[in-house]
Order: sequence, then C-alpha cells, then structure tokens
Amino acid sequence: MNQPPHSDNTVGMRTLYHSPLCPASRKIRVTLAEKDLRFELKEENYWERRREFVKLNPACETPVLVDTDGTVLAESIAINEFLEERYTDVNLIGKSSTEKAEVRRLVLWFDLKFNHEVTRNLLYEKFFKRLMGYGEPNSDAIRAGKSNILYHLDYIAFLTRKRKWLAGDRLSLADIAAASHLSVLDYFADVPWEHNKDAKEWYALVKSRPSFRDILQDRVSSIRPAAHYDNPDF
Amino acid sequence: MNQPPHSDNTVGMRTLYHSPLCPASRKIRVTLAEKDLRFELKEENYWERRREFVKLNPACETPVLVDTDGTVLAESIAINEFLEERYTDVNLIGKSSTEKAEVRRLVLWFDLKFNHEVTRNLLYEKFFKRLMGYGEPNSDAIRAGKSNILYHLDYIAFLTRKRKWLAGDRLSLADIAAASHLSVLDYFADVPWEHNKDAKEWYALVKSRPSFRDILQDRVSSIRPAAHYDNPDF
Repeated sequence: MNQPPHSDNTVGMRTLYHSPLCPASRKIRVTLAEKDLRFELKEENYWERRREFVKLNPACETPVLVDTDGTVLAESIAINEFLEERYTDVNLIGKSSTEKAEVRRLVLWFDLKFNHEVTRNLLYEKFFKRLMGYGEPNSDAIRAGKSNILYHLDYIAFLTRKRKWLAGDRLSLADIAAASHLSVLDYFADVPWEHNKDAKEWYALVKSRPSFRDILQDRVSSIRPAAHYDNPDF
Repeated sequence: MNQPPHSDNTVGMRTLYHSPLCPASRKIRVTLAEKDLRFELKEENYWERRREFVKLNPACETPVLVDTDGTVLAESIAINEFLEERYTDVNLIGKSSTEKAEVRRLVLWFDLKFNHEVTRNLLYEKFFKRLMGYGEPNSDAIRAGKSNILYHLDYIAFLTRKRKWLAGDRLSLADIAAASHLSVLDYFADVPWEHNKDAKEWYALVKSRPSFRDILQDRVSSIRPAAHYDNPDF
C-alpha cells in the first residue's frame, strides 16, 4: 500500500495490529517468529472501526503489518507473500513454482474452505458474534461446524500420511494456516482430536515449535482455554 | 499438486476446467488471454462431484488448470500466482514486493470481501442455488447484496481517481479479479452502473480489452444476459 507510517508507529519498529483469537493474525505472528523477525504487537478491536485503523486498512480487519520501513500491509495472505519475498533466509513457501502452487492451494483450503465451513460456524458464532453485539449463537451453524471439522481432520491426516508436513517435507505456510485456525478452535475445546490420531500427531509437531509458544499464551479475559490448550503432549 | 495428468488430457494441451458464470474461472481465462497462452476449455458442473474431477481437485471447485506439462493446479489465486511465475512476458502482479502486496491486497478484497458481501448474496442465491437444488433464493441475502455493491463501486471509483487501474498504472490481477466478479453480476443486470460514473468508466476500459471478449460471449441456456452485457459502450 506504500503509505506513510501511521503517526504512532516509530519507523524502525515492525508493528503487527492483531486480535488474539483471530486466526489470520496468528498466521502472521507464527511466520514472523519462524523467520526470527522481531515485532511489536498491538491489539486492535477492529469491529470498533477506529478511524486511524481504517486508514491503515480500509477493509478494517486484522492483521495489519507495518514493516520497519513504514510499508503498510493488509490481508494475511498478501502479508505472508510479502514476508517470503523480502525475508528469504527461512523459506516457508517452497522453491519451485509447483511446490509453491501446492503450498498456496492448501493455504487457500484453510483460509477459505475451512474458514467458511468450520471457523466461522464455531468461532464467530460462539465468540465474536456476542463480542460485536450481533446477538446469540446460531445452533444450526454450530452443529454444521462441529460436523464439518471431522472431514478436515481426516484431510490433514490424509496429507501427512504421504508427507511429513501438509504440503511436503518441510513446514510451510500451509501448516501455519491450518494450525492457526485449529489453535483458536482448540482454545474453546472445539477440536475433537480423538477423531483422528494422525491429525493430532501433526498438530503436536506444530505446537511444539518455538514459533507457536507465543500464541498459546494468549488469554481472553472472559473465557479460560481448554485444559490441554497449551500442552504439547495433549 | 504435481499429479500425473488425468487420462482425458493430452500432454501438451493446456486445459481449463471451468463453469461459465463462475468468477474464479473467469479470472483464469482472462489471465491466460492477457498472457497470450492458448488453452482448451472444459465445462465442469462441479456440484455434480464427478469422480475424476474430485481427483484433480479434492475441494471439487472450478477452476482447475492442467498445464502443458501435466501440472494440476487448483484455487484461482494459486493458479494466477503460478502463471505469473512461469510465464513472465506479460506481468500482471507488479514488480517490487510493495507493488505486489497492493495487487494481492486488492485481489483478496474482491475474492474474499466482495465475494462474501456481494457475489454470494446475488449470484449464488439467484442462480447456483436453484441449479444445485438448494431451493429458493433468500430475499434478505439479495437485499444485502444489492445494498453492499454500492459501497464497492465507490471503492473502485476511489482507487481509479488516484490511479489508472485499481492497483497502479497498469492492468493487474486486481482489475481481473474485480471485473470477473462484476461481469457475472452484470449478466443478471445486478450492477447499478448509474450509481458511480467513475466505476463504470473503469469497467468500460476492462470490457474493451480483447482478453475479455471471450467471457462476454458466454451464455447459459436458461437465462439471457442484460441487454448491455457485452457492449463496451454501455
């Protein structure tokens, strides 16, 4: 977007505007940590539509990253692509065009399909809807989310039986996207891990990475997480 | 995905599995035409879940592209990134990381936000829902779509007052994404072009490109398009 940095950003300090239980924000936090890039977190209640935040991102959604040179970035998929291009020491997207296409296909699987079929039905209904003042959860949606998640856990297991990680032999943005969605649902004990042992094993691998430690320490004041939430041996 | 080509693909022939009024399919058709890449179109009623098609794309959605070497690609955003990387003569994504971030932000604006707030509410309710046997259109959804589109037309106008095209001074994947969604809605006369003259001027520019000619000739058997649908001087 190439806008000048917002006045409360010091040039030189990388700043991530995030919301603690927002899967898209978590993706960027994990990517930055995997790449060993320092950043400052600022919590943003995007639904309050703070004027200065709308200037940074007219879509008024988290995450927004302001990089060290003041570049303002919005939309988690675009932010991760930018970080891959600018900070190349740690590669999370693959090398060849074909490898990258597979990583991107799976990122979109989780950010679009899983989000539509599962995350929205559970996280939005049970948490954000009330927070934003849109009323009570819709029980049909919750039922659909709880049913749909089983098939996605099976798909994760299917992929990891052929490969060590979701898109190949190395951790990629695909694992980060999937685990970010699941970690938020897991906060509410909404992931039936007993349904698929292989999916659980993959998640234990992700969870044990230092890049994941930070988001597992998030707490929202009104709700305590599931007992196993931050335990790698769950 | 790097799978072997499906048996009815001849290696050497690039094949796009598409659905005529699917915005994501149109994006790939326009990108291929802008890059002057030849391809064969195969119409796929993805909601029928044809077994061989599910093998190509487990998400069972159009578009799916099988490139000349047999590489199978799914998810329109991933397909366009692949085409940008492999076929570089015509650049549609920008040069610097910052330019690319802006193109990608706007692609995601239309493929996620516009799709959620407008396309789904109009196209799915009025056309695909009946086709797929999910019943009658929901009038609340249609009302929301008709209201939301006004603000998106204003955003297009806002962008093109600063720039020739949506993301900068050259046509990009952002224009292709936006125009693909709008072209489908325009088939049903669901775009109130009189609302914003600047947005209409931008669309007239896109519509007059040779890459757009092909999709404006699509017809679905049950419904005739709006009178102005394929007229660049509408």
